[in-house]
Amino acid sequence: MSANVESKNIKLTLAYDGTRYLGWQHTSVGPSIEGELKRVLEQVLQEKIRLQAASRTDAGVHAAGQVVNFFTKRNSDLPKLVYSLNCLLPKDIVIVEANEAPAQFHPTLDASGKEYWYRVCASRVQLPLQRHYVWHYPYALDLESMRLGAERFIGTHDFQAFCNAKKNEVYENHLCTIERLEIVPDEGNYLFKIAGNRFLYKMVRNLIGTLVYIGVGKMEESQIPQIIKSKSRPLAGLTAPAHGLTLQSVYFLPKYPE
Amino acid sequence: MSANVESKNIKLTLAYDGTRYLGWQHTSVGPSIEGELKRVLEQVLQEKIRLQAASRTDAGVHAAGQVVNFFTKRNSDLPKLVYSLNCLLPKDIVIVEANEAPAQFHPTLDASGKEYWYRVCASRVQLPLQRHYVWHYPYALDLESMRLGAERFIGTHDFQAFCNAKKNEVYENHLCTIERLEIVPDEGNYLFKIAGNRFLYKMVRNLIGTLVYIGVGKMEESQIPQIIKSKSRPLAGLTAPAHGLTLQSVYFLPKYPE
Repeated sequence: MSANVESKNIKLTLAYDGTRYLGWQHTSVGPSIEGELKRVLEQVLQEKIRLQAASRTDAGVHAAGQVVNFFTKRNSDLPKLVYSLNCLLPKDIVIVEANEAPAQFHPTLDASGKEYWYRVCASRVQLPLQRHYVWHYPYALDLESMRLGAERFIGTHDFQAFCNAKKNEVYENHLCTIERLEIVPDEGNYLFKIAGNRFLYKMVRNLIGTLVYIGVGKMEESQIPQIIKSKSRPLAGLTAPAHGLTLQSVYFLPKYPE
Repeated sequence: MSANVESKNIKLTLAYDGTRYLGWQHTSVGPSIEGELKRVLEQVLQEKIRLQAASRTDAGVHAAGQVVNFFTKRNSDLPKLVYSLNCLLPKDIVIVEANEAPAQFHPTLDASGKEYWYRVCASRVQLPLQRHYVWHYPYALDLESMRLGAERFIGTHDFQAFCNAKKNEVYENHLCTIERLEIVPDEGNYLFKIAGNRFLYKMVRNLIGTLVYIGVGKMEESQIPQIIKSKSRPLAGLTAPAHGLTLQSVYFLPKYPE
């Protein structure tokens, strides 16, 4: 590894088990994914590193395909860098790959879409191997009405009713486009796959909580258009817990000539 | 709950994440499934409890359908007992159900068969959510030759070559019947499902280690009959690690009139 004056933009794809973290974002009150990754990168590269992530996942949320970037002046061999990082990172954070990106690449601003997966166990008893990754909601869920509800969310809508209040952040608008929302049943579990261009604060978990309320009969799928129209958070369902959620993929348009 | 002179034989089906335990069997050197369950049963029932399990799973091995029994003089409502136990047990041990069994029922002696599942991840990178439940063996595995190898194990054979030495235990014979050994590929992972009438010490993990060696080309499936014939442990493959293994089910013949 030798010093190099020109700065390179490195794009990392990473996976993590969010169980013991306070979320992506660095905080002084406890462990964060950003904090661990920054510490290990600075140890390996011996320079100050600033990380930017496509999605600032919340405490307890997992990732299979989070995308982050950083700039480095070191001329590192990327497969070796991945190997070193994976040796030094805690076992619940894994770098899947590293690539050099165009200088202008920005994982948040350039993301054209994201896909989240959410897992629910509706069985009376939940197997302990799932306890950190699947929300245990032990009531019979009606798949057909959840699917009808999911269809109501597809398309471009103002999702303010599904957005929790967040300190220091005001959205310019609440328009989001849900491209897909599939529900895959699997032996008492339900896997919700949701893809869209952007998601507001806790929006995925609020959509899932609403669909689960529809599945159990606490709400009707026909209410969804009114809830969307109301822009009123209390009218939608509960916020499903963090540990059922995984950031599955971040999508980028091929924006820059390579 | 009232005292009752006649002793009842209670059969429990339980699931656990074996990650942080030294195995089923009680030991003074660290946490065990038996130790946790006995402690909580004695707390709830207020009497001395002796547990017997169908399978003494090793350290790190998981269970989805372990079966154990105990005798109690308390006249407890079983669904309430399950609820109380699940409230008091650590979150990585779950009672799936409790039933009153015939007085003669013995989970070890009466088991007519067991089914174990073993998971292998052959991808270069393993997702961190799998790290405690799936063996990461990052080499391309040939499914067809593993399946041919699996077929060689089906039936009744002397499995001494696949049995590790164990202190204080001498088997009268090493004859075991493997009823099924399926290999289900799933996106870079392989799920091995193995069912048989009995399994010797570390036998499942030695069968899996041998099949994985065949899959990667370190051994040929055609060697299996010679290895069985040799009764020599060093000729078989490695012992696959504990954390990929789950005791899935214990089978009982309907032996006693109910």
